Amino acid sequence: MTIRFLDSLPLSDRGLHYGDGLFETMCVSAGAVRLLEFHLERLALGAERLGLVLPDSAELYRAFEEAAAELGEGVLKLIVTRGSGGRGYLPPEIVSPSLILLRYPPMGVTADEVAARLCDLRLARQPRLAGIKHLNRLEYVLARAEWSDPAIGEGLLLDTEGFLVEGVVSNLFLVRGGRLLTPSLDHCGVDGVMRRHVMARAGTLGVPVEVKALGMEDLLGADEVFLTNSLSGIRAVTHLLDHRTWEAGPLTRQLRKGLWR
Amino acid sequence: MTIRFLDSLPLSDRGLHYGDGLFETMCVSAGAVRLLEFHLERLALGAERLGLVLPDSAELYRAFEEAAAELGEGVLKLIVTRGSGGRGYLPPEIVSPSLILLRYPPMGVTADEVAARLCDLRLARQPRLAGIKHLNRLEYVLARAEWSDPAIGEGLLLDTEGFLVEGVVSNLFLVRGGRLLTPSLDHCGVDGVMRRHVMARAGTLGVPVEVKALGMEDLLGADEVFLTNSLSGIRAVTHLLDHRTWEAGPLTRQLRKGLWR
Repeated sequence: MTIRFLDSLPLSDRGLHYGDGLFETMCVSAGAVRLLEFHLERLALGAERLGLVLPDSAELYRAFEEAAAELGEGVLKLIVTRGSGGRGYLPPEIVSPSLILLRYPPMGVTADEVAARLCDLRLARQPRLAGIKHLNRLEYVLARAEWSDPAIGEGLLLDTEGFLVEGVVSNLFLVRGGRLLTPSLDHCGVDGVMRRHVMARAGTLGVPVEVKALGMEDLLGADEVFLTNSLSGIRAVTHLLDHRTWEAGPLTRQLRKGLWR
Repeated sequence: MTIRFLDSLPLSDRGLHYGDGLFETMCVSAGAVRLLEFHLERLALGAERLGLVLPDSAELYRAFEEAAAELGEGVLKLIVTRGSGGRGYLPPEIVSPSLILLRYPPMGVTADEVAARLCDLRLARQPRLAGIKHLNRLEYVLARAEWSDPAIGEGLLLDTEGFLVEGVVSNLFLVRGGRLLTPSLDHCGVDGVMRRHVMARAGTLGVPVEVKALGMEDLLGADEVFLTNSLSGIRAVTHLLDHRTWEAGPLTRQLRKGLWR
């Protein structure tokens, strides 16, 4: 199967009707996709969960490499949907997914330090969709619509049970006593490629990492707090509105140094 | 604002990227949309919840009436998205929604009695999205993918706490001691137009209706069970796989008689 990206979407596409698909937002630098293996891994996991049949991973790899080489610097966004057809929600038996590849300019310089707020919206707990980057993103649209002040760089999200999950466009890490803590994503949230990369890096640096259920008390008691995102890398949270401030701490800085190898 | 329906969707549309929008599936018979007021009411509620700016309701009304007159018999599906633009999840300040109107042939004769199964998928509890007909429908795609046997007409859904919610494409009603019971949809589920119509009709017939939290014990102890859907009307559940059977009962039949006036 050769990869063919669509120029337009049929109005019958299940991506539009149901959000029946996945996406990946990839950072392109010096003509290459950063963390491409992690992106492909998550995509494969998402496809397995949704029962989507994707093109061969090696072919996708090659297609993204080609697109990245052409783009040079910027962002590639892949959208994969189950394609058209089926009776209502019932997925069609013969599946021909729609592949869309969008190109954007580089996102520009992002601050290393960020002020965050706590979102009112609480993420619903749906283990069947947790971790993967599917197209049902209304909760994130509603959460992001809660603020417009450009001085606020991110909104932090709790789930409906009050557990910490992530930021609207990032994953969350806490440092306590030299250990790295990050919320488990078994019930909701997106398992970011930069999250995986940072966890792997921490391992290399001999920093213990714990993935577990975390609450507000963990956040407010943390020595350092930072966010990860495939485009903006690592950003220190130096202020949580109405709560407290932090310094950009030593472990945050250490992990950021040489992040892109 | 005159209503213009799109012939094609820009690849930047937020409906595709995030499921950032709403839909309505409307039954057209004898050149008119059935229960059009209810459809417009739910659409308006959904728009309010998502912060979408819709065309004037009277203009929408007229546009659907025209389309229905042209179609004669069949199904109209409206998809409204927030349109294109915005930085990532952040909705754009100037909003120009995308409107898509799809025409389908009549769905054909549906059986008055149906065998149902209980779905493994449990709906997540998200009060911010409960009741409205938004485009984030992956849970329903996954639930519907659980069976392919055409003898099974519907799958019943519980939420993650074990409460009854609805069917994959229908709302659920129980009859007990001459009263009508239907699950409250405060945490998840779609508030169907036929659900509203049936509740109004029950009121007219002097049948008490209770909207409340219901569990499996309520379902299994019900005298009658039926499903409602804007296209298929009222269907009696006569068999719940692995659990029990029912007769199509007198209240179900009474409500169905003259359902369309």
